[in-house]
Amino acid sequence: MKVIEKTEGKIYSFSPNHAPIYHAKSGESLVIQTYDCFTDQIQSEKQPLTELDWNQINPATGPIYVEGAEPGDALKVTILAIETDVKGVMMVGPGLGTLGDQVEEMKVKVMHVRYGRVLFNQLSLPVRKMIGVIGVAPKEGEINCGTPGAHGGNMDNRMVTEGATLYFPVNVSGALFALGDLHAAMGDGEVSVSGVEVAGAVTVKLEVVKDLKLEQPILENARNFTQIASAKTLDEASQLATDLLVKRLVAYTNLSLEDALMLMSAVGHVEICQMVDPLMTVRAVFPKSILDQLETTLL
Amino acid sequence: MKVIEKTEGKIYSFSPNHAPIYHAKSGESLVIQTYDCFTDQIQSEKQPLTELDWNQINPATGPIYVEGAEPGDALKVTILAIETDVKGVMMVGPGLGTLGDQVEEMKVKVMHVRYGRVLFNQLSLPVRKMIGVIGVAPKEGEINCGTPGAHGGNMDNRMVTEGATLYFPVNVSGALFALGDLHAAMGDGEVSVSGVEVAGAVTVKLEVVKDLKLEQPILENARNFTQIASAKTLDEASQLATDLLVKRLVAYTNLSLEDALMLMSAVGHVEICQMVDPLMTVRAVFPKSILDQLETTLL
Ligand SMILES: [Ca+2]
Ligand SMILES: [Ca+2]
Ligand SMILES: [Ca+2]
Ligand SMILES: [Ca+2]
Ligand SMILES: [Ca+2]
Repeated sequence: MKVIEKTEGKIYSFSPNHAPIYHAKSGESLVIQTYDCFTDQIQSEKQPLTELDWNQINPATGPIYVEGAEPGDALKVTILAIETDVKGVMMVGPGLGTLGDQVEEMKVKVMHVRYGRVLFNQLSLPVRKMIGVIGVAPKEGEINCGTPGAHGGNMDNRMVTEGATLYFPVNVSGALFALGDLHAAMGDGEVSVSGVEVAGAVTVKLEVVKDLKLEQPILENARNFTQIASAKTLDEASQLATDLLVKRLVAYTNLSLEDALMLMSAVGHVEICQMVDPLMTVRAVFPKSILDQLETTLL
Repeated sequence: MKVIEKTEGKIYSFSPNHAPIYHAKSGESLVIQTYDCFTDQIQSEKQPLTELDWNQINPATGPIYVEGAEPGDALKVTILAIETDVKGVMMVGPGLGTLGDQVEEMKVKVMHVRYGRVLFNQLSLPVRKMIGVIGVAPKEGEINCGTPGAHGGNMDNRMVTEGATLYFPVNVSGALFALGDLHAAMGDGEVSVSGVEVAGAVTVKLEVVKDLKLEQPILENARNFTQIASAKTLDEASQLATDLLVKRLVAYTNLSLEDALMLMSAVGHVEICQMVDPLMTVRAVFPKSILDQLETTLL
């Protein structure tokens, strides 16, 4: 299996202007190594933060050109495995994230991540591996890797973990896929703007799905189909994710709009991914146990 | 155990102006019967909706005066059991809830709720019993039972179910507790403005906790401590719930504000209760497994 080293292609934006560092066949699995969100600059809590280069935040490794992917297709990305480094970093600072206005000084915490646990002061937290930044190039321009959107990017969605499959709208030939910003743990909301930030490596399978037009990314796992959406406020993102999911239910089943809406209200969930990036990301979650009864996968 | 019949006290607002229908001792358990959110007016899908009296929406049963409860105390409410009726009702209509602008006509669905399942068209949905409206009187005035707030009310929080314990800020002597609006199922968000609405009965234990000042309701269950908050937008409610929870972590432990914020970001979740009532309700969720390590209950 091809292993892409993190030194091979470090990008700070999703853009059609970045030259691909690898050409993958549709259906190919590969290992992608990643820096942490500080580009591995923080090695110790004693390090002066003045040394930090703030232009090197949220790198992704890529882009990877997937053969056969064209605008109007979807890129299907299956997360086969996530390996995380033994060093985790968190940061809070004035003006950063929820309650940032109450934080007086920037503070960094460096933690051990071992044997499935994160050591936070004297506390042992469970490791919950996930990918913060994952996506494809937009049609034009550059989208900073710190921002989420229809192309994916910094969605900070806890469901982006081992066993999940994502679908991104392809905007340019080859899709130009990249990922980075792994977390050893992060809660829904990511209220302080960081998870337990780690370097690592992700094994993914990349596949082109021809003629599957998507407005925003989709994620599914063994239990749920989910529609992701990012927007300026949680209210707008929640509305958009719900709207897209309900319309999909109507398009793929015999349900009326009214019935689809009631069904979503009865068994679906609207959940916060993150509320700090600075667009907000939400997922509308629908159980596969009900989709099975409706005899659809929504795809 | 005292059984309060739903006909004994049907209120459409939380208010110090309603006369108590029962005086409970602190520590007393009682059964409270409830109408569904339409005051049981809808018996069949064939019934003309023009007959519906819209002034009779979201009744609660109460108020119950709890002896010894005074302003500055908290009312602790343990949900011991929820029984639901065999008839469930859902409704969608123009302008109601998320996507209400796309609904052309009011539509009602009447469903069987039996053997742990809701029969929705030909679909079998799992029963997930919960209480939509639960709370205490505000200091003055009237708050419609359709609205959530610091007093509780129409929070439509899926976690308000068997095994949960709530804490409400007491605003008037006796607290004046009431509940109603049971659901046989409802997803986070309650996107169409209704769950599977059912009449039923709730067994609760009511206890006064002296000198526990709360700004917004708290809920805990076996796994999690949660801070609930309602506000005009999901963004504001999320900010407020997070703020109150993080401040509580700082007040009850040796954690600095910075550490409490990082910890919440690593292991806590910000979750949507409902986004349609018309204030938004959110819960900040923190795992008890970590509170145990911190040797605090946050209460
Ligand atoms: Ca991120
Ligand atoms: Ca982030
Ligand atoms: Ca991150
Ligand atoms: Ca309700
Ligand atoms: Ca209801």
